[in-house]
Amino acid sequence: MALRARVLYDFHSENPGEISIAENELVTLFNEEELEGWLEGENSRGEAGLFPASYVEIIRDHITSGANDNGFSSPKAKALTPTHASYTSTEVHSQRGSGGGSYHTSQGSDDDWDDDWDDSSPATNAPHGLGSNPPPYPVMSSLPGRRESAQQQHQAKSSATVGRNLNRFSTFVKSGGEAFLLGEASAFVKDGDRICVVMGKHGPEWQEDPYPFTCTIDDPTKQTKFKGMKSYMSYGLTPTHTNVQVNRRYKHFDWLYARLVERFPVISVPHLPEKQATGRFEEDFISKRRKGLIWWMNHMTSHPVLARCNVFQHFLTCGADEKAWKQGKRKAERDELVGANFFLTICTPAVPLDLQEVESKIEGFKTFTKRMDENSVVVNTTINEFARKQAAGFKKEYQKVGQSFKLLAQAFELDQQAYSVGLNKAIAETGEAYEAIGEYFAEQPRQDLDPISDLLDLYRGHLANFPDIIHVQKGALTKVKDCPKQEGDLHDRCNIISCATLAEIQHFHRTRVRDFRSQMQHHLRQQISFFQKITAKLEDVLRRYDDDQ
Amino acid sequence: MALRARVLYDFHSENPGEISIAENELVTLFNEEELEGWLEGENSRGEAGLFPASYVEIIRDHITSGANDNGFSSPKAKALTPTHASYTSTEVHSQRGSGGGSYHTSQGSDDDWDDDWDDSSPATNAPHGLGSNPPPYPVMSSLPGRRESAQQQHQAKSSATVGRNLNRFSTFVKSGGEAFLLGEASAFVKDGDRICVVMGKHGPEWQEDPYPFTCTIDDPTKQTKFKGMKSYMSYGLTPTHTNVQVNRRYKHFDWLYARLVERFPVISVPHLPEKQATGRFEEDFISKRRKGLIWWMNHMTSHPVLARCNVFQHFLTCGADEKAWKQGKRKAERDELVGANFFLTICTPAVPLDLQEVESKIEGFKTFTKRMDENSVVVNTTINEFARKQAAGFKKEYQKVGQSFKLLAQAFELDQQAYSVGLNKAIAETGEAYEAIGEYFAEQPRQDLDPISDLLDLYRGHLANFPDIIHVQKGALTKVKDCPKQEGDLHDRCNIISCATLAEIQHFHRTRVRDFRSQMQHHLRQQISFFQKITAKLEDVLRRYDDDQ
Repeated sequence: MALRARVLYDFHSENPGEISIAENELVTLFNEEELEGWLEGENSRGEAGLFPASYVEIIRDHITSGANDNGFSSPKAKALTPTHASYTSTEVHSQRGSGGGSYHTSQGSDDDWDDDWDDSSPATNAPHGLGSNPPPYPVMSSLPGRRESAQQQHQAKSSATVGRNLNRFSTFVKSGGEAFLLGEASAFVKDGDRICVVMGKHGPEWQEDPYPFTCTIDDPTKQTKFKGMKSYMSYGLTPTHTNVQVNRRYKHFDWLYARLVERFPVISVPHLPEKQATGRFEEDFISKRRKGLIWWMNHMTSHPVLARCNVFQHFLTCGADEKAWKQGKRKAERDELVGANFFLTICTPAVPLDLQEVESKIEGFKTFTKRMDENSVVVNTTINEFARKQAAGFKKEYQKVGQSFKLLAQAFELDQQAYSVGLNKAIAETGEAYEAIGEYFAEQPRQDLDPISDLLDLYRGHLANFPDIIHVQKGALTKVKDCPKQEGDLHDRCNIISCATLAEIQHFHRTRVRDFRSQMQHHLRQQISFFQKITAKLEDVLRRYDDDQ
Repeated sequence: MALRARVLYDFHSENPGEISIAENELVTLFNEEELEGWLEGENSRGEAGLFPASYVEIIRDHITSGANDNGFSSPKAKALTPTHASYTSTEVHSQRGSGGGSYHTSQGSDDDWDDDWDDSSPATNAPHGLGSNPPPYPVMSSLPGRRESAQQQHQAKSSATVGRNLNRFSTFVKSGGEAFLLGEASAFVKDGDRICVVMGKHGPEWQEDPYPFTCTIDDPTKQTKFKGMKSYMSYGLTPTHTNVQVNRRYKHFDWLYARLVERFPVISVPHLPEKQATGRFEEDFISKRRKGLIWWMNHMTSHPVLARCNVFQHFLTCGADEKAWKQGKRKAERDELVGANFFLTICTPAVPLDLQEVESKIEGFKTFTKRMDENSVVVNTTINEFARKQAAGFKKEYQKVGQSFKLLAQAFELDQQAYSVGLNKAIAETGEAYEAIGEYFAEQPRQDLDPISDLLDLYRGHLANFPDIIHVQKGALTKVKDCPKQEGDLHDRCNIISCATLAEIQHFHRTRVRDFRSQMQHHLRQQISFFQKITAKLEDVLRRYDDDQ
């Protein structure tokens, strides 16, 4: 008897191999087993293909057990499954709780480039599993070898000598790391797509970009469409290697981000600054988002792999030609070298890494990220509190002193003898100076504490990425260690994953040292000029006491 | 029938004209009417003279009314009568409440120079009206024409054409102002005792001291006597005009203060720093008292009248010779030129002042002192609160930021790659710098806020003195205005009081402008060097970031 399922939510196919299904429709399943959250079957119109497993309910007339007992999640449980892997369930908590709060990620996109969804609408059509909304489903494009049919994958499985991971939702599997390790990835890699890991002084590292560039982001401008019915913010980006400005909206950044995440399984794509539905035209928010995008851009252009990748270049260089944009967009969305195939693009140093050493480095980094994340939370909380205190308490105290000096001057002004007048004025001005100093204190945190806070937010985004990255590498390492025979190919592929992971870690450290050094320097310079400004104010007012002595 | 009274408390005569009386003794009164708190009569040993009215109870076998109904206070009520006059009962409240809290005054003294009373004992033998202790009595030496007998005074009264003030406890009366105005003061004034008021640019002023001097006060040393059973603090004073150090205890200052108060009715004698019974050998208290005494001394030596007066010179110059000291002490206590007679010593400018103008100046000053006192309270409260905040909140905030930076450094130290180490150290040192800055904030108020607070305390002592001074002047002015005939002598004497009062007000303003100017300058200079110290600290730590870039 053919297994059937009832469709719970509408699903519109977006990619080849997918089929559209409608709520309440009955579909026939070819196989009860899910493949990365997808089922294969036929809809009522006779079209065969894939659809999200969580969008249907399998009809079991008298069968109560089955696929749900084999370690896969039921659709409902799946809706609750975290979409990020973690070291352990306890470890992930602080990572998620901290890094996830301020940066937003979205996956997938569609062709609604010209519809009226705006920065406030969900940036992706992947439905969210809340209330009557459909649950999320895995992004098709991140499926290992998603261009192959499920049958082909099954054949590949049977030819492998190493067992598959039973947890279809582990990052190792989802990222394509497992598929690659098992030799299931296959795609044509052009020379231009090659990504080299070289052996540097401190271990594997991404080969430097021979043509480094940066990109400025101008103050966004408010644009309108539909005769002013809809408005949005547009950012002017000017990359230094073309020196031509292009205009992008936040949703374009969001789309790009989603492409990068699926494209690069072991690269920490910087999180975009937080979304905000309301008040997104308010000055504060706009300025904050722009600062966040500048940080983001800075991390993008300084990453040797991300900076050079096609989709980012398309984003940075494609002008106002709508057709060219769509072409590049479709090309990026159909990129074969995503997930498992990404690893095919990696060239490693001639000498393979020592497994033991890799493991120890990864362990060390795990400890590092955990501690950095914890302590970043403390720093962020402390400096935000300090900023709040300066804006409130410090300001108030200086202003109260200022006001009391002004009161003293007012009392003294009741004596208007010639030798009194100069002092009276000087004391009144001292009062004003203290009030001004109060203002300085209130305004200072914008200059030297907020940037540190922004930097910590960005880094906590990276820290939230690394558990997944490490998971992929550890998954590969575990597989290799479990392998009964020392298969050369398996080792080679594991070495590729290790090289890429360590190169990414190296890049993280280098960027971190660069960013924190420059940010701390900036902070101190700002503090110094802040205290110098106060000193100058006081010196100025001190001179008033000499006026008529 | 001779009126008799029963003695309630022992009283030992100290001055000529007084008689000693013993508890429960019966004395005969010559007259029921008190004269400035004193009664005249004969004791059981047949000695005739004055004794404090509050020390006896008049025996009225069947008489229930009498002296107590004529507007004078009964002995009990007298014990509760404030010893300072005030502008009005509502006005005095803030003056008393503010100025009286931190400075102490005491009147009278005796010869117990070598007994074991110490700084913690009452500095005067004038009994206080609490419990079974005798009530206070007016200081004899401030009685108008106290060397004359009561009879003589009564004769003087009958010869005057202007009525007496009925309130025997008004400052105008107590200070001797009234007696002087009525022409009852008489004493031999040597040239050296003359005090000149000259007409300066801004009105009457005390003639400048042709030989100005200052006096340093060394750190006090702890002295013991009775084989170490008793200990006390001794201050080494070195006046610049002799350059010889003399040693004085706090009680000597206290004795001097009492002499000055009775000697100079319209001069604002600076209040001594607060007494403290416990903990008076503690470093903080000693340092605070010394600072207070330095301020006090500074006000003494810069006052043209106080600086030159005999009792102060005796205090500053008499060495360790016990006999010489006692001699000077007795001489000061028997000084005739106190109270009413003080006014005899004053030389005025040739042209008498315009009464209207005097009145308006005095009114203006009254308003001034009231406002200055009120606003000084605000300034003092504010800066003390500011000091507290710096020692607590500000310090804590900077230290929390410092600690969080150190935590960040600790996390970063888990990465010990060569290019990381320099940054890790620099961030740790930044943390330390912030902790140090927290300490700077906590310590700073001692340097630049406490001195302002001390100055305000001293000035609030002066402000508390002025109601009495103004009261004397206004009393004289009222009397003159009420006078049916324009008596030349009365006007002349009123002019003397006005000149002295205005000279003292002028001196107050000059000193105030000088002190507040220099204290505000000191404050600002300290603040400037404080912020420069912070800047230097930050600049120092900023350089650490360049170490290995």
